[in-house]
Parts: sequence; C-alpha cells; structure tokens
Amino acid sequence: MQARFFAIREYPRGVPPRELFELHEEELPQLAEGEVRIRNSWLSVDPYMRGRMSGVRTYIAPFELNAPLEGGAIGEVIESRHARFKPGDKVRHMAGWRDVAQLKGEVLEPLPDMEVPEQAYLGVLGMPGMTAWTGLNRIANLREGDNVLVSAAGGAVGSLAVQLAKARGGTVVGIAGARDKLTWLEQHDIRPVSYKDKEARQLSEELKTACPDGFDVYYENVGGACLEAALDNLKVGARIAICGLISRYNQEEPQHGPGNLANLLIKRARMQGFIIFDHWTDYPHFLEEVGPLVAKGEIDYEETIEAGLERMPDAFIKLFEGANRGKMLVRL
Amino acid sequence: MQARFFAIREYPRGVPPRELFELHEEELPQLAEGEVRIRNSWLSVDPYMRGRMSGVRTYIAPFELNAPLEGGAIGEVIESRHARFKPGDKVRHMAGWRDVAQLKGEVLEPLPDMEVPEQAYLGVLGMPGMTAWTGLNRIANLREGDNVLVSAAGGAVGSLAVQLAKARGGTVVGIAGARDKLTWLEQHDIRPVSYKDKEARQLSEELKTACPDGFDVYYENVGGACLEAALDNLKVGARIAICGLISRYNQEEPQHGPGNLANLLIKRARMQGFIIFDHWTDYPHFLEEVGPLVAKGEIDYEETIEAGLERMPDAFIKLFEGANRGKMLVRL
Repeated sequence: MQARFFAIREYPRGVPPRELFELHEEELPQLAEGEVRIRNSWLSVDPYMRGRMSGVRTYIAPFELNAPLEGGAIGEVIESRHARFKPGDKVRHMAGWRDVAQLKGEVLEPLPDMEVPEQAYLGVLGMPGMTAWTGLNRIANLREGDNVLVSAAGGAVGSLAVQLAKARGGTVVGIAGARDKLTWLEQHDIRPVSYKDKEARQLSEELKTACPDGFDVYYENVGGACLEAALDNLKVGARIAICGLISRYNQEEPQHGPGNLANLLIKRARMQGFIIFDHWTDYPHFLEEVGPLVAKGEIDYEETIEAGLERMPDAFIKLFEGANRGKMLVRL
Repeated sequence: MQARFFAIREYPRGVPPRELFELHEEELPQLAEGEVRIRNSWLSVDPYMRGRMSGVRTYIAPFELNAPLEGGAIGEVIESRHARFKPGDKVRHMAGWRDVAQLKGEVLEPLPDMEVPEQAYLGVLGMPGMTAWTGLNRIANLREGDNVLVSAAGGAVGSLAVQLAKARGGTVVGIAGARDKLTWLEQHDIRPVSYKDKEARQLSEELKTACPDGFDVYYENVGGACLEAALDNLKVGARIAICGLISRYNQEEPQHGPGNLANLLIKRARMQGFIIFDHWTDYPHFLEEVGPLVAKGEIDYEETIEAGLERMPDAFIKLFEGANRGKMLVRL
C-alpha cells in the first residue's frame, strides 16, 4: 500500500518557506506482528512543531531530515495485527503529516466515547485543551475569583484558557491581534487588548486600564512585549505559567528579555515553564472535567480547517501569521 | 536624652554619594507608657536598604526624607515603661542608623538565649541567615544531592547559602568577584567562579565546566549576566529563588533582561521571587535548625565591621563595591 508523507530536507531559519516541505511517497511494508495500519482523517497543526525543526534538541528531539514529520493525528484502523485493535476503530496517535500511518499498537490511544466530533480530540479535548487546563490548574494554581491574563487568547490554547479561567469568576483579559479574535473575546465577556503595533509600555498601560487591580495569573503563550507588559501588572503572589513563547520561535537572532524581571521579586511572583507531555498522566482528570462541558456545548471552540494532505505545510505556515481561529487542522 | 541619627534629604540616583547622609541630633521626649529606650550596640548594613532610598514603593515603603533611616539593630534596654522589658535586656529591632532608639515594646524582639555573640542575630542568625535558609528550603525546595548555584556567594546571604546547600551533598558552585572571596569558597569545597569582566556567554561556559550536569537550584542575588548564564545551565525541573538583583539596584536606566528565558520552558523550570519579611513566622524553625550549628562553630560566617555611628554611610556604600566579606555591621 502506498503512503504519502511530508519531510524537510534541512532545518530552516526564520519562518519556514513553503518549498522546505517535500511530499514523498513510499510503499508500506507488510504489517509485522503487533502493528496497526491507520488511515488518517485529521492532522493536527501546532506551533510547537517549529521547535522540532530547529535541529537542536530542546525538550523534544528535532525532526529527522528526509523522514516523515510527526504530529498529532486521528484516524481509523484499516488493518491490524495487534490484539487490542480491529479495522474500524478510531484512534489518536503522533504519526501526522501523512495519509496512512503504520505503527505499533502500543502507541495508539483509542478515542474516548463522548458525544463530540472526532477532531475535538486534537483540539479542545486534545493537546491544546489539556495544555490550557494544565497551565491554569496545575502550574498557575488557578483559584476562585483570580484575575487572569492570557496572551494569544484567540489561539487554540488561549481561547480555551480564557473560557476555563472565566468560569472561575475573576476578571479575564485576553491579548490578541486580529480584529475578529478581539471581537470573539468581547462576545465571551473577556476584556480584549490588542498587541498590534504596541511596545511593552503602551501594552502595559492598556492592561492596567483593563484590569486595574492586576493579575493573579498570567497564561503566557507569546513572550516579548506581552511578557514585559504582564510583569508590570502582577498582583502580589502572582503565578505565571509559560506554555509557549511563540514570538521567539522564528527569530534568527537572540533577542533581549524583559528588563523588568525585578517585578518577580517585588511581587513575590512565580514564573514556571511546562511541557504538556510531562503531564499526560493527568489526561483522564482533564477529560472528566472538560469533556462534559464540550459535549453540552458549553465551551465555544473554533477550528480553522484546511482540506487535503497537500495543504499541511500551508496550514503550518499560517499559524505564524495569526491567520487561524482556534485550532488549526487539516482534514484528509 | 540626646540621640543621633542619619537621614537623607533626597532620593539618590545611582550609587548614593557619601554627602547624601546627614547626621542629625535630637532631644528624645520622655518615655510614654508602653515605650522602651534602647542604646544600640550593633547596626545592620544591608543591600535592600538601597531599595528604600528610591522614593518608590516596592515591597516596602521608601525611607521618609529628613527622618531617621531604618534598619536592623541590636541594643540594650536602658529605660522601660513596658511590662515585658527591663534595663539590661538585649533586644533586636528595626530602628537602626541611630545610637539611641525609642520604641513601643511590641516591636522589640528579645534576643534568643544561645551561645553566640549578640551580633550574630543580625547576620548568620538574623535576616541574612534566615534569607539564605528560606530561599533554599521554602522557595527552591532544596533536596538531598541537589546541585546548587549561588551568586554573590561571598556576601552575607550567599556565604551561608553555599554552606547550607553543601551540607545536602550535591555540587555547589559559588559566583563571586573578589580574589579573597573566591579563595574562601575554595576552602569550603565550593567550586568558585569569578564573574569579573565576563559577559554572560563566558560565564555560562565556566558554569558548565564547574558543574557539567547543570543545576537543580539557583540562588539568585545578582541578576544581569549571572542570571543569563545560570538559565543556560539548568537541569530539567530546576528551581530559581530570586532573593535579590543587586546588579540592578544602582542602575539609573532600565536594562534589558536575559534573552534566554525560553530555558524556563525547555527545562520546565520555576523562578520565584521572595521577600523575607513574608516568611518571618518561620524564624523559630530556622533558629532551631541553624542556631545549634552556629553555636557549635559548624558554620563559617564572616563579618566586616566598621566602628562608630559616623561610619554607617561609608559601610553602606562599601556594600556596592563588594568590599565586605560576609555580614557588614557597624559597632557603636
């Protein structure tokens, strides 16, 4: 059976150009004992993938050159030599960027049985949802009534973080850029602040206006001016969960950091980085809490969908243009 | 009775000049009911006092202009209208920068009864010792065998932090500048690294050589290049306790921060500021643990002593020249 996959032939600098991504075709070998063949139906498109294109080991190994790229995916079993799986089963796995995957059964997760569309397990009930929930609850120790600031608040993770935070009763402020994202935030009773064309100082003043008492929690996806402005607006005892620093991912030269880290001292604040893969054992707790909310339609999650494997690189590049609303997906 | 005290007439920029500090003389009023008069014997000289000269409220109110400056002090009660105190009692209080203090009895702490010199309660068993212990144990959650990095390791706080850390069995590296501080560290089996004339990159390489496995804990007193170099050498799950950022205290212009904060994300590390005044309820625990070590001579603490109230401003300015070894004190 033929399978098609994307690979890169070198590690890019800056925003990856479209031509970096090459579509390959291969003949899959016969299934070995314990293996499963899956036809992918949905591919996940995530900012963290940029980190794996750097050629440097960070918290996760870099992508291998000229080998299939990886990422979250949902698919249906079409052939199985593993006792736990049979054709027709829906599974989640990490062999994205391709149409047909062949994997050991051990690395597959059967999709939970809830009244939600299957691609939800890549977004609101997948890694982005789990990332929003973990950062707020496990890293930032969100408490009832906390004032919460979220950067990239219109993104896949941020748009869930603001809703989960809002449910706890405090003031929630979301930083975003695109006009429609700011409108979406406003519709959900989140105070929107645009970062566009603003230096840290102005952003800081606008955050102060949006939430004069300051923030107990900052959910950080961006870095740069957002982090600096947030540091100016912390309450005593604030907690910052660093989920991502997307403003840095495509920078070729090292940049300076915020000059106001002394606020961590003045406000006795805590800043902590986390990687969602470390927390995956908590997934059942997350699913138990957030799954029913999604099934009942109480979480407003959005998807930006591109169609066809060929569009996967374009979808990925769009992430860095802020063009997606909510979770970016490719449907096969 | 006459009392002499220092005051400042304006808030300085940069390193405070000697002539900023003016010696005043006043006639103390009669003791009111509940008040106590103390003849000070030792005055504490601390870097955090610079923060109170900024005219800006940070975690503690700024010093009032033309009013007695404040700081830790040890003295002997010479007159009392408070039931708990009688002449001859030794007490600790915050009315330093003067020779005779007149205070409500409630703000005085009787000195504990241990076999240590009384000025120890301003240093190794006072705020600096408590700060070292709290940062390591309560903020950075120091564990057996942790590799620990301490900046300003020859200072009042740092020289205790390295010894308390060393007792837990891991590799301990101390950053200092002066030759004699580096030698002192070496004598205590602490790996010394000089920060002098080094940019973050070189410092980072020397830390790597001193402790190739990286650090579980960074006890931060300095900021600037030290923080940047430390961020490059964290182990996964590292904890940074920010006790002070002395490199910043006298800077007139805002400076950039470290450009490598992404290490907090890559290493799932935590950075937390703390103010010792928030933790004073823990003082009995600290005293119970560290007091006997000091009494038995198992902690090597040093003091730099200036004699006479008039020398108080000079002693304070010397802090920023790195001229002190261990705790800076003025003996009256």
